Amino acid sequence: MQVQDVRSVVITVKCQSRPGIVAAFSQVIFECHGDILDINQHNDKTQDRYFMRMACQLQAGEIPALRERLNAVAARLGAYYTLQDGVESTRTLIMVSRFDHCLNDLLYRWRIGELNMQPVGIVSNHPKDVACSRISLGDIPFYYLPVSDSTKDEQEDRLRTIIADTKAELVVLARYMQVLSDRFAREMEGRCINIHHSFLPGFKGAKPYHQAYKRGVKLIGATAHYVTSDLDEGPIIEQDVERVTHSDTAEDLVRKGRDIERRVLSRAVLYHLEGRVILNDDKTVVFLN
Amino acid sequence: MQVQDVRSVVITVKCQSRPGIVAAFSQVIFECHGDILDINQHNDKTQDRYFMRMACQLQAGEIPALRERLNAVAARLGAYYTLQDGVESTRTLIMVSRFDHCLNDLLYRWRIGELNMQPVGIVSNHPKDVACSRISLGDIPFYYLPVSDSTKDEQEDRLRTIIADTKAELVVLARYMQVLSDRFAREMEGRCINIHHSFLPGFKGAKPYHQAYKRGVKLIGATAHYVTSDLDEGPIIEQDVERVTHSDTAEDLVRKGRDIERRVLSRAVLYHLEGRVILNDDKTVVFLN
Amino acid sequence: MQVQDVRSVVITVKCQSRPGIVAAFSQVIFECHGDILDINQHNDKTQDRYFMRMACQLQAGEIPALRERLNAVAARLGAYYTLQDGVESTRTLIMVSRFDHCLNDLLYRWRIGELNMQPVGIVSNHPKDVACSRISLGDIPFYYLPVSDSTKDEQEDRLRTIIADTKAELVVLARYMQVLSDRFAREMEGRCINIHHSFLPGFKGAKPYHQAYKRGVKLIGATAHYVTSDLDEGPIIEQDVERVTHSDTAEDLVRKGRDIERRVLSRAVLYHLEGRVILNDDKTVVFLN
Amino acid sequence: MQVQDVRSVVITVKCQSRPGIVAAFSQVIFECHGDILDINQHNDKTQDRYFMRMACQLQAGEIPALRERLNAVAARLGAYYTLQDGVESTRTLIMVSRFDHCLNDLLYRWRIGELNMQPVGIVSNHPKDVACSRISLGDIPFYYLPVSDSTKDEQEDRLRTIIADTKAELVVLARYMQVLSDRFAREMEGRCINIHHSFLPGFKGAKPYHQAYKRGVKLIGATAHYVTSDLDEGPIIEQDVERVTHSDTAEDLVRKGRDIERRVLSRAVLYHLEGRVILNDDKTVVFLN
Repeated sequence: MQVQDVRSVVITVKCQSRPGIVAAFSQVIFECHGDILDINQHNDKTQDRYFMRMACQLQAGEIPALRERLNAVAARLGAYYTLQDGVESTRTLIMVSRFDHCLNDLLYRWRIGELNMQPVGIVSNHPKDVACSRISLGDIPFYYLPVSDSTKDEQEDRLRTIIADTKAELVVLARYMQVLSDRFAREMEGRCINIHHSFLPGFKGAKPYHQAYKRGVKLIGATAHYVTSDLDEGPIIEQDVERVTHSDTAEDLVRKGRDIERRVLSRAVLYHLEGRVILNDDKTVVFLN
Repeated sequence: MQVQDVRSVVITVKCQSRPGIVAAFSQVIFECHGDILDINQHNDKTQDRYFMRMACQLQAGEIPALRERLNAVAARLGAYYTLQDGVESTRTLIMVSRFDHCLNDLLYRWRIGELNMQPVGIVSNHPKDVACSRISLGDIPFYYLPVSDSTKDEQEDRLRTIIADTKAELVVLARYMQVLSDRFAREMEGRCINIHHSFLPGFKGAKPYHQAYKRGVKLIGATAHYVTSDLDEGPIIEQDVERVTHSDTAEDLVRKGRDIERRVLSRAVLYHLEGRVILNDDKTVVFLN
Repeated sequence: MQVQDVRSVVITVKCQSRPGIVAAFSQVIFECHGDILDINQHNDKTQDRYFMRMACQLQAGEIPALRERLNAVAARLGAYYTLQDGVESTRTLIMVSRFDHCLNDLLYRWRIGELNMQPVGIVSNHPKDVACSRISLGDIPFYYLPVSDSTKDEQEDRLRTIIADTKAELVVLARYMQVLSDRFAREMEGRCINIHHSFLPGFKGAKPYHQAYKRGVKLIGATAHYVTSDLDEGPIIEQDVERVTHSDTAEDLVRKGRDIERRVLSRAVLYHLEGRVILNDDKTVVFLN
Repeated sequence: MQVQDVRSVVITVKCQSRPGIVAAFSQVIFECHGDILDINQHNDKTQDRYFMRMACQLQAGEIPALRERLNAVAARLGAYYTLQDGVESTRTLIMVSRFDHCLNDLLYRWRIGELNMQPVGIVSNHPKDVACSRISLGDIPFYYLPVSDSTKDEQEDRLRTIIADTKAELVVLARYMQVLSDRFAREMEGRCINIHHSFLPGFKGAKPYHQAYKRGVKLIGATAHYVTSDLDEGPIIEQDVERVTHSDTAEDLVRKGRDIERRVLSRAVLYHLEGRVILNDDKTVVFLN
């Protein structure tokens, strides 16, 4: 057995609830001489729906046989499954407007090896010196797509081309302040993560920190969610909050919010990259340990 | 100087912003041979409004002179002030429906000396054996005020009588599930604290934990606020949250929520009793250390 | 199939790491027509040790067959397993000294159905009116075991007798301030939970809040752990903290600490009762969802 | 009155407790036509010691008169005071070894205007391409001071020269892993902030995350403190924690710890820069709002 051939793979399963699912899938791993490192499952009783995540290690040479057996088991149980090979990093496109704190944070975490992604491009509706003047992008391509009412559709087509050309598997809206079309949201279902700067469902829409200041809340938050055609209503992946007081101005909330936004978005991206997030209609299943 | 005569008093001040307020009020304390233990202030720049809280110690015999001087200073500066003598505990009426966890918590904290209040009665729209079967009320009077659509007004009048008879200065709605009238809310402005079982402004209205479950949020919360005629829109005193996951059912959220509700409500009541909360239109100033 | 026969059982497994464990155990559940509701596992790579928890539902009539098959699988894999029938509540003895906030909290949670335990007795080194004057014990027996240097061993023997007579499976030290013997700690391994009023390993020993005040920490905490012969060094089950400031006196820390202690202890007891905690030498595996 | 002349100044006061301090200092501000924006005080009863912070706005032209009057009041009350003019940013030297996450975070916050400091240099015991290969330093000078047992004293002298030449008022040890001498610690009293990667007083010394893993704690933390000659015993400015589980390896703790370290250190630096921290022997007073 050659050490260099050992692979970490993540398998996710989604199907109708029924007995024997763990037994069937774990048997397949065992037959392929794999070792289950992590296993999580969730029964959504209200929907009679079952979700599972298995992180395994096995010889690279076993992966084709594993896929074949998984196909058979999935067919028998009426299950939908995914298999993610841990060697491959996810090709990721990051979109940003004028605030670069989330972008800076994602790139730093990628550079020190925290996020197993490959940034294939930065897209902004502002020029590079506005969008990320303080950040060294290295050789990550920057795409300037200025948006006006008249060019909106055209620019979204260019975005589609960029996604296709760069083979981006994930799009992260890292404080990208332009609304994308319903069509785009549908095309990118489960592959486009947005950070909204409020604790949803409170303070949807524009200027949430100013709304929060006006309402006098004692905690502010941020929400990372998959983009859907219904603005700020997409399945929530991660949220967090921080305490504020009467002495915090709206500007203070913006400042404190930056810290919340970047940790919430980076966690959501991490969970997505590690295959921990499964869509469940308007909600998510997020398997942590 | 006799030790037994030393009193702790709390002074709150509210006025238009202008220089010299701290100087003027602290000079008055000094002239009455008082010692300032705590001082907090807040300038609301958006409203050009000033708030201050001073906790002082002085001889009981100095209090009349202090009041006189405070009257003069307040008149000169156009300020509104309150003076609370720490010896007196606040007469408090607690209202409850079917869930007694908040009531139990408040009474326990009162019994071990955490809350400087005097419970003058428990009011419920359910009989005593439903409303608080697990709790020993000791000699705190229990008032059963069943509410139906036809008796609503009449019962609220009885409630007014109870408040008047017991000289209640504070009413705490400790999971009291009946809506009180606009008139009542106005009469009790700044003296009636409610606990809402969601992180407002998210999930207003009925069954907030079920709304939260449906939306798939990753944190749930509770909000203590002063009651106003606008339901779930009153000035927020305190909020807190706890993390939940996809595996929590709506019933799990109810269970986890109980812990949040009781700590949020007990903190809000504590802050109120210690004179730490000042109303600022739809918001509050809460002076902590 | 009769609905009233459906049982929830919790199975925990502990063995050397090896492939096929999930497959083997989940197969057994499947063969007994059981449904896996929850499954968690942990590989401790540093010890080459494997831990698993399965929560299942199956017909009561299947339980004997399940035990038989589990025995066979466990023998084959060299595994140690436990099976807990969810119908049975854990017989629990609670020990307390002068502070009853944890006791009050545990009993309240038991009364509203949060904790699936059966309190078989309260033991204190103080008389009932000192140990729990503010709490109605109902028909839970109270045992007064005053401890002095000369009676220590004798009283611990009485405690052993009480544990034996009441068939207590779990002993909770709910701010019991007497040190138990090494022998007792060994006898009760994994069945005796203590709450220490600091964030261990900081501030071991006596008066931890006063130690914390002296050191000027900005957060204080509490730690629930299994009792071992090494004081304050037992396997940690749960910890939590709260923020404090320079303005908090040692007495304020004691007050704030009460809230932390009771939520940490009640969580630890809940996790233990639900079979979520497995000992791993000096540490614990705690399976949450 | 010319708008451009309005200055924000921060005054801190430290003296023996006695009545009239607020009155005296606020009167001085009033006489100089200043406006008190924030006022905080603390009475340390155990030491009979008084601390105050006032943030004021006044005409730049009034500052000399203010200093004169403050000198007089301070002399009369036996008080020690500081006055910090908000226009001036604090000259700051940052020291780092091999991990640059704290450095990166501090520089980013400075660049977006969160931290009112002027970085006058980066010092490392590693070459620039090791210490901060991922970060663009712009025109901040980098000093490479390799340390060995034989060169330790000599390099510390070079460090002294750098501090003198750059007129650094604050030194931040942003994961600088070399121990500085007692003499240096005394020279820099209250002007040198270190981040220790544990929740002190737990896990002092080397490899705290590995110690935490071994002990099986359920929360890990970080501590920012002023450097003293007693290692890891300096006055604590800020601490924070995050939840971990049995499934986190020592390496996971290191990763999660990075986030805690950078937010704890950046907060401590912010508080120091805003004149919010006053030394109280082995502890700090930290005035937040």
